Amino acid sequence: MGIKITTTGHYLPALKVSNDDLTQYMDTSHEWINKRTGISSRHIATNENTSDLASEAAKRILAKSGISAEELDFIIVATMTPDALSPSTACIVQEKIGASKAFCFDISAACSGFVYALSNASHLMKSGNYDKGLVIGAETMSKVINWQDRSTAVLFGDGAGGVLLERTDSPEDSFLAEDLHADGSRHLALVADHKNVQNPFTEVKETQSYYLEMDGRGIFDFAIRNVPETINRIIANSTLSKDDVAWVVAHQANKRLLEAISKKSNIPFEKFGLNIADTGNTSAASIPILLDQMIESNQIQAGENILLTGFGGGLTWGSLLIKL
Amino acid sequence: MGIKITTTGHYLPALKVSNDDLTQYMDTSHEWINKRTGISSRHIATNENTSDLASEAAKRILAKSGISAEELDFIIVATMTPDALSPSTACIVQEKIGASKAFCFDISAACSGFVYALSNASHLMKSGNYDKGLVIGAETMSKVINWQDRSTAVLFGDGAGGVLLERTDSPEDSFLAEDLHADGSRHLALVADHKNVQNPFTEVKETQSYYLEMDGRGIFDFAIRNVPETINRIIANSTLSKDDVAWVVAHQANKRLLEAISKKSNIPFEKFGLNIADTGNTSAASIPILLDQMIESNQIQAGENILLTGFGGGLTWGSLLIKL
Repeated sequence: MGIKITTTGHYLPALKVSNDDLTQYMDTSHEWINKRTGISSRHIATNENTSDLASEAAKRILAKSGISAEELDFIIVATMTPDALSPSTACIVQEKIGASKAFCFDISAACSGFVYALSNASHLMKSGNYDKGLVIGAETMSKVINWQDRSTAVLFGDGAGGVLLERTDSPEDSFLAEDLHADGSRHLALVADHKNVQNPFTEVKETQSYYLEMDGRGIFDFAIRNVPETINRIIANSTLSKDDVAWVVAHQANKRLLEAISKKSNIPFEKFGLNIADTGNTSAASIPILLDQMIESNQIQAGENILLTGFGGGLTWGSLLIKL
Repeated sequence: MGIKITTTGHYLPALKVSNDDLTQYMDTSHEWINKRTGISSRHIATNENTSDLASEAAKRILAKSGISAEELDFIIVATMTPDALSPSTACIVQEKIGASKAFCFDISAACSGFVYALSNASHLMKSGNYDKGLVIGAETMSKVINWQDRSTAVLFGDGAGGVLLERTDSPEDSFLAEDLHADGSRHLALVADHKNVQNPFTEVKETQSYYLEMDGRGIFDFAIRNVPETINRIIANSTLSKDDVAWVVAHQANKRLLEAISKKSNIPFEKFGLNIADTGNTSAASIPILLDQMIESNQIQAGENILLTGFGGGLTWGSLLIKL
């Protein structure tokens, strides 16, 4: 028995907002944004919520794979911008695509959410209890962004991507190694929608802080130190060498940061997939969107070893070594 | 290799609010509440958030087990009332208990969250990659309750409970069978903190609905039909008979509902653990709180087969057959 990632897919909302467009809403410029981040534009949802983006990505995956929604045993959505705290976004996706048999839940691990969710899904599948499962990363970051804060509003975008896992009779397995981490002592570096205790018995009434707040410098420093570490560790714990890794599909937070990670981990930047120019940072959605784009454009070839690496709020970070 | 649930623990905030106390805030009575639900009082957090309750439960588990926080490989928190959308509540717990090695994430599946999270944790452990993991269900439902709505405000309470999983050399395993389900077509039956799309490009501006809204009758009907089904199915899929099940530790939503589930599933109500009188409905926290109380009071004995069953928003429901 092997667990294979058989199909990928993604969906971006239609509206593309350029750096120049943003100058109508805040004091910024294309040059300033692009030089520091590599971002030129991002897709923004005008009336679609996270479950809508996730459902469109799911429908594309199902269409490509040829399986029906009713065959799915589970749906996991990784998101930090769910439609609601109940129901889970995965349950709404279930309704929208008609996956009547699936059990459904969301995973919250910020920008590392997809890597965490894919790890969980691989272990669920390896139990032998399930044949087909969908793992989606989906975000409408635009709804938690403070559009008055130019230091964060220019960075994020909306979108969804995902993968289909299937159990096969072949012993070949898509999952070669995993390496997951967190450091809650730095949890204030990226906060969104903090909800204080509030009820008639609350002693101290505090204001809620809804919008995303980020210590950009702190996150940059963390990623430069910890991401090369997880890359080195997962390769050391596998049977592969760095040369065996064809592609690094890293969370698209910032092009300059990815260049620094490439340098520090001694993996040529040519091996790093890149779509941040057109998508911005889509948090838990960035890795599956990029993975699908690289497969669709024939950058990634069947049989290649791919290193997925995510990092972000929590702090959380982690890597999966996979083979398609 | 076996995966064992070796330790349980729980924590309830100090303030106990009786049905009579609630009459100061809404038009209700002890008789009305107690007759319909079996609830007499509930614990309400006055200044502790979900991560605080979860951390206290975690500390009690660690103190009982004798292991140190640094030995934990992962922390999963099941909650529909996280401290924030980023960081995950699990990351804040990690900081508060000092579990520096752990990776951490939250699972969102409403009142079924603990059963879902425990299933995931069991599969993570069975991968052989991890030795010790903590699974916590924790909620401050009081922060999403509309305290003006007497039809829901009287039902919920705050609290946290959890279990420690450990890998052992013995072939004995705590996890005998699982059965997980969802039906997103009924996702409007229990909604909390629905967040519409909102950004400068949004076409239709809608109001957010923050407070929990529940179709009580719909949830009751769903649970009476679907919970006996999952109980029958998990037993049919195991090597056990109903007589082999010593205890049913069900989500504490409503005593009348549990009586109906007992009747319809042909399992005597004496086998159903019960603490709703003193805790109300604590969502994802209810099962681990009750499990720990039943072990501490010697109701549950070592080696007994226990059926955990959760159900709620999503809709989600599911069961685990375990042995301590």
